[in-house]
Amino acid sequence: MIMSAEARPRARRRRDTEHRLSHDVDAWVATASSDGRPYLVPLSFDWDGEALLLATPAGSPTGRNLAVGRVVRLALGHTRDVSLIDGDVEILEIGALPREAAERFIARAGFDPRPLTPPYRWFRISPRRIQAWREVNEMPDRELMRDGRWLT
Amino acid sequence: MIMSAEARPRARRRRDTEHRLSHDVDAWVATASSDGRPYLVPLSFDWDGEALLLATPAGSPTGRNLAVGRVVRLALGHTRDVSLIDGDVEILEIGALPREAAERFIARAGFDPRPLTPPYRWFRISPRRIQAWREVNEMPDRELMRDGRWLT
Repeated sequence: MIMSAEARPRARRRRDTEHRLSHDVDAWVATASSDGRPYLVPLSFDWDGEALLLATPAGSPTGRNLAVGRVVRLALGHTRDVSLIDGDVEILEIGALPREAAERFIARAGFDPRPLTPPYRWFRISPRRIQAWREVNEMPDRELMRDGRWLT
Repeated sequence: MIMSAEARPRARRRRDTEHRLSHDVDAWVATASSDGRPYLVPLSFDWDGEALLLATPAGSPTGRNLAVGRVVRLALGHTRDVSLIDGDVEILEIGALPREAAERFIARAGFDPRPLTPPYRWFRISPRRIQAWREVNEMPDRELMRDGRWLT
């Protein structure tokens, strides 16, 4: 790996991560089946300041894995500038989300999952642990959030 | 999502995927623990025309998950131009890889895992299934390889 730039202090990494949460459209979504098979797809998301909102078919591999395992690992950014989020999963049936939250999601993601077939569900992801790094020199201090709390 | 360009035929997607396999440096590596916890990190890789080669510490979450589950899901590219690879995992102790293959990896990845502490292992990933798509209009025909064979 290339030692590109000075390592960012933790406060700067938090700002960069929150900027991605507020502005990016897609995240990499890694889930696992109960018998230990990994799955990974890109999905669009919204962020309300506390949790990420995803929508995917209830019967898709990601939808099934999220419903069974209730945990997810998400990546934002690219491989040399990554924010990684371990989160807990809350499931909402497609009609159960307040209209305002649904409309925020639709405006950001560019599609409305509510009328789609096969049926979609909402998955609300509360970050429990967040890490962020660019290159090897940022491996120290990569942990930004632990047990759901931002570190200072 | 945006309907950006005409859907690529399968042969073109295969060429684009093989170009990434031959030229990209990093992949997203999704694994799962035996009790169904997902893990995801970016790792550098080499490609010898048949398999991807990764190196990661034996005791890291990815190293442990690969050793137990022997399956992995990799993503190349970015969220709107993705190649997804489900692969089977072969493990090689760090001294067991032929020198030529190790040197190819070092030249591409930019680091030599052989002398590192904690100890690394090599993981050789044979693709079993490959999919590639950019936007929604490319969801049909996204499967490029099935059961280890390129589809025609």
